[in-house]
Amino acid sequence: MAERTVDISSPILSRNERLAAELRERFARTHTFVVNVLSSPGSGKTSTILATDALLREYGLRSAVIEGDIASDVDAITMKEAGIPAVQINTGGLCHLEGNMISQAVDALDEGVGLANIDVIFIENVGNLVCPVDFDLGENLCVMILSVPEGDDKPVKYPGIFQHAGAVLLNKIDVAPAFDFDRDAYNATLDDLNPQAPRFEVSATKGTGMDAWAAWLREQIAAVRA
Amino acid sequence: MAERTVDISSPILSRNERLAAELRERFARTHTFVVNVLSSPGSGKTSTILATDALLREYGLRSAVIEGDIASDVDAITMKEAGIPAVQINTGGLCHLEGNMISQAVDALDEGVGLANIDVIFIENVGNLVCPVDFDLGENLCVMILSVPEGDDKPVKYPGIFQHAGAVLLNKIDVAPAFDFDRDAYNATLDDLNPQAPRFEVSATKGTGMDAWAAWLREQIAAVRA
Repeated sequence: MAERTVDISSPILSRNERLAAELRERFARTHTFVVNVLSSPGSGKTSTILATDALLREYGLRSAVIEGDIASDVDAITMKEAGIPAVQINTGGLCHLEGNMISQAVDALDEGVGLANIDVIFIENVGNLVCPVDFDLGENLCVMILSVPEGDDKPVKYPGIFQHAGAVLLNKIDVAPAFDFDRDAYNATLDDLNPQAPRFEVSATKGTGMDAWAAWLREQIAAVRA
Repeated sequence: MAERTVDISSPILSRNERLAAELRERFARTHTFVVNVLSSPGSGKTSTILATDALLREYGLRSAVIEGDIASDVDAITMKEAGIPAVQINTGGLCHLEGNMISQAVDALDEGVGLANIDVIFIENVGNLVCPVDFDLGENLCVMILSVPEGDDKPVKYPGIFQHAGAVLLNKIDVAPAFDFDRDAYNATLDDLNPQAPRFEVSATKGTGMDAWAAWLREQIAAVRA
């Protein structure tokens, strides 16, 4: 069953790879570090980006956000209220972001604030643990956010996205006592799937653990610019 | 952007509609009530099915489960340990279930325990708020589960699946005090999107509110069989 789907989507995928390569060159030229933020709906992508931006500002780094949603512009409004330049993409029902949408959004950011004034672009992908993995957006880093209430078995059930991630955040650890989340089982699965990616345990809304994540991210940004 | 996707997937969709109609006829012949269970990853599909089965047994109704996952068979094992006949579908990366997969799984259930011995089949779809909506599986009822930790804004952001649902469960209400979930905002959005679908506030693991949901479900089953 899966093969048929791969056959059908391959023209889109190869077109997307070309667009992703163009985006990657463009980001390299403008020294823009790009983070593709992936998670289920409601794991805390928006609050993580907000809290990360606040810490990166302390390092003198300026963020912008590309918001991907099926519908609505509530997240872009939230970002703008926090003083972060934001562009909303509505996919009109599509379950992931693709390179052509990012190209248009980057054009809009460039016309608005100018890419020269942006150090980091966070792309908040559609909340989905499956489809976004197949679409390279020219990013430097994919960060995967799992939240404690979703359960420790999610890496077992959705291995592809956890293998793909360059960093894994376990969010909402402030509510861990209320949930039956087995950290050992979670870590053992990630040891198998993706031992290279650093893991951070955080509460984006409470600020717990965010310093370590932001410091690591700052290092990645500096390494790319060096 | 969305139109292109619709064009590409339409041969699959029309083939799926034919298969769904066949499944619907088959379920009607065998008096099997079928529930398509939809949610994000980790909202509590498995625990809701387990708790619902326990209550339906008190009414003398026998359940079976078709488990849809990208990978792993942990949910089917959980069901079998609870004494519920279960068939695992691994989609091999595909983000939703389709009619042909359900046909094969129903064949397996029929060969195993016999459809004549099953009153209700729960189809646990892939955890995804976008793609499964487009694929009719011949079910009598689509039930959408949102969990409190995901946030009250999910119906705004993923309207399609909430509009599509025949019933909406708000799960994990036992942890509501730890989260900033605005019930009024949630209910107001559903009043707009889907005023017909009954809503139940439940905790599948604690049992809260499950009686009302199971009683309503029993009525739907009885109505189809009358």
